[in-house]
Amino acid sequence: MKILVLNAGSSSVKYQLFEMNDNQVLASGLIEKIGEMDSLAKIKYCDERGCEAKIERVGNIKNHDDALAIISDLLIETKVIASLDDLDGVGHRVVQGGSLFSKPALVDAHVIEGIERLIPLAPLHNPGNLAGIKVSLEKSPSVPQVAVFDTAFHATLPQYAYLYALPYKLFEEANVRRYGFHGTSHHFIVKEAAKTLQKPLNELNAITLHLGNGASMCAVKNGKSIDTTMGLTPLEGLIMGTRSGDIDPAILFYLARTQGYTIDTLDTLLNKESGLKGICGNNDMREIGKMAQEGDEKAKLALEMFNYRIKKYIGAYSAILGRVDCIIFTGGIGENDSDVRRDSCQGLSNLGIEIDESVNNQRCSSITYISTTSSPVKVLVIPTNEELEIALQTKEVIEAL
Amino acid sequence: MKILVLNAGSSSVKYQLFEMNDNQVLASGLIEKIGEMDSLAKIKYCDERGCEAKIERVGNIKNHDDALAIISDLLIETKVIASLDDLDGVGHRVVQGGSLFSKPALVDAHVIEGIERLIPLAPLHNPGNLAGIKVSLEKSPSVPQVAVFDTAFHATLPQYAYLYALPYKLFEEANVRRYGFHGTSHHFIVKEAAKTLQKPLNELNAITLHLGNGASMCAVKNGKSIDTTMGLTPLEGLIMGTRSGDIDPAILFYLARTQGYTIDTLDTLLNKESGLKGICGNNDMREIGKMAQEGDEKAKLALEMFNYRIKKYIGAYSAILGRVDCIIFTGGIGENDSDVRRDSCQGLSNLGIEIDESVNNQRCSSITYISTTSSPVKVLVIPTNEELEIALQTKEVIEAL
Repeated sequence: MKILVLNAGSSSVKYQLFEMNDNQVLASGLIEKIGEMDSLAKIKYCDERGCEAKIERVGNIKNHDDALAIISDLLIETKVIASLDDLDGVGHRVVQGGSLFSKPALVDAHVIEGIERLIPLAPLHNPGNLAGIKVSLEKSPSVPQVAVFDTAFHATLPQYAYLYALPYKLFEEANVRRYGFHGTSHHFIVKEAAKTLQKPLNELNAITLHLGNGASMCAVKNGKSIDTTMGLTPLEGLIMGTRSGDIDPAILFYLARTQGYTIDTLDTLLNKESGLKGICGNNDMREIGKMAQEGDEKAKLALEMFNYRIKKYIGAYSAILGRVDCIIFTGGIGENDSDVRRDSCQGLSNLGIEIDESVNNQRCSSITYISTTSSPVKVLVIPTNEELEIALQTKEVIEAL
Repeated sequence: MKILVLNAGSSSVKYQLFEMNDNQVLASGLIEKIGEMDSLAKIKYCDERGCEAKIERVGNIKNHDDALAIISDLLIETKVIASLDDLDGVGHRVVQGGSLFSKPALVDAHVIEGIERLIPLAPLHNPGNLAGIKVSLEKSPSVPQVAVFDTAFHATLPQYAYLYALPYKLFEEANVRRYGFHGTSHHFIVKEAAKTLQKPLNELNAITLHLGNGASMCAVKNGKSIDTTMGLTPLEGLIMGTRSGDIDPAILFYLARTQGYTIDTLDTLLNKESGLKGICGNNDMREIGKMAQEGDEKAKLALEMFNYRIKKYIGAYSAILGRVDCIIFTGGIGENDSDVRRDSCQGLSNLGIEIDESVNNQRCSSITYISTTSSPVKVLVIPTNEELEIALQTKEVIEAL
């Protein structure tokens, strides 16, 4: 069974083709700068001799229609597939499923209309996701298409955790609530943890940390998300590459009144110019680590603040979970930055968390226990694989047809 | 030594007169609705026979000048003092001390100018506080006047805790940072706790909860505030009577774009129409408790959300403190609402917190231990006394003159 996973943004499409018999990646790549003169198309695949091969092409790719045509061409040209009819399904990443979608959905007119209705809640993401779905449906009308939502894993949040203390009618009439994101990743790593801990998923309590340029945490009780740091949008919660995460909302009133900011410039400020970049001028955690080592005070401060925020959420989620079986780090930073893992868990022995520094300092390219053997709470690094999770969920929907 | 404590708001002045030899209240009262035709002046005092007596007067009180004249008249007329010259000092509550005032300050032209400069950070509070100081100084120029700041106790926050992940220049150039409030109350109860636990204040780790119509929590390490839930303004953190506390700041962008809100209507929304009132239509915790008992679902939800937010912060502060000696409840809700105390601490035995329900259910009019005898973390109810704390700090400043 072959499943193509598409992650279509406003000006890019990432893709991966899986052979689901062994969850193997047959090809992967991306289309960038759609609509520009120097658009880029890339594919990485396994050639006929079994060697890894790459193709890159530069040239104007006008729109998502062209982007999907090129992906199709590249897959056929490299003989990964003979035609689009070889595909058994296409899985689409969709950022915002709102309250409409609590699980993966086989795409039909109704689903498309639903994703469209959710655009006001995710104006930067859902339109691109939808463009990918529509074009893909057009090009392979006979192949089942499945929408997999970033929010779906968090559909189990209890109302007292997803509601904000705002007038209730804003929830009823304008859908203001916590949705949470990165659900596919949190879901994937918590399933992996259940396997490696040999514990039934529905008995596993975990705190999961997806730390990349975007970053979020999730409290998982009996295998289900009960709280998460991102909210109505991906701005809330942790400090991120360029996003502020939690702030006093009244800062916006103060900045508007005393510094001349508007709603639009405040949006840009909080989403694009804040976070690590706001504090130290850089949003690349590897570079910030180097800067800090070289004595840059702002870089040190950015790291302290980043880890401090995580530590507070580990505490908060320990409180609401009552019992924590494991803490799981994933994402670009979570998988690769041993300093962040050490410092965010430092001094938490009262919560039963003890990192083994020597193991933590090793490269964790596969599932790795980084807690001490006596640590009551296990701390794990688990590489995430959102594309595989989308493919797996797509397969499940297709097999149930 | 007689010290008068004044808490001057924009249209009200609360006052208490203390005999500092035994910290006894000689008289207390308030002036309300300043500037209206039916302004109200009240005094409660001890008459010549030693009985509690009260006077109330209704009539137009034009401004703070008139308000202080009436307070002076009432104190003299009731023979509590013979003249304002009997006062050894006046202590003034000031909400926002910014980065300028980390301790109580003897009022002079420089201090007045400082409080004036901080008005943009506390436009609703500092002007009233300042009016009280100016008038009081005019009326009793020979009596030392001391400004006691709500923010001062939080001056010990480390930079990684008080900074927001916003562009650093907003801190440097526009003073955007966490200041915290209710400092006088947090400070008072943590000193009381040190006494009752017979532990030096500088070795005491505590989580303090001031829960009233405004509500905040504080993490106290070795007697010093290291983090607190309120931020640049008193909006951040816990769910309050009419304030939202923490929300995804991007909710403001969404509401502005899809629901027609402006900066001003958003400010009103978050500060006046949210919190408990937003969720269930009522901001009086006693009434909400009754509504919930009678089966009102929104009231139940409001309580669940209120307690859940507290529980998350107890966890967060447990994490950053490492060791917690005690948790202290105070304020109107903290001192009187046993359900809130029970539910916000429920299920926290993994953090060493265990409430003794039978003790918790008793009325706690003086310092009361409500944790079980075996609870590693002591849980206390300590009635706050911000006025006395202001008087004590005022006395300290005067004695050092």
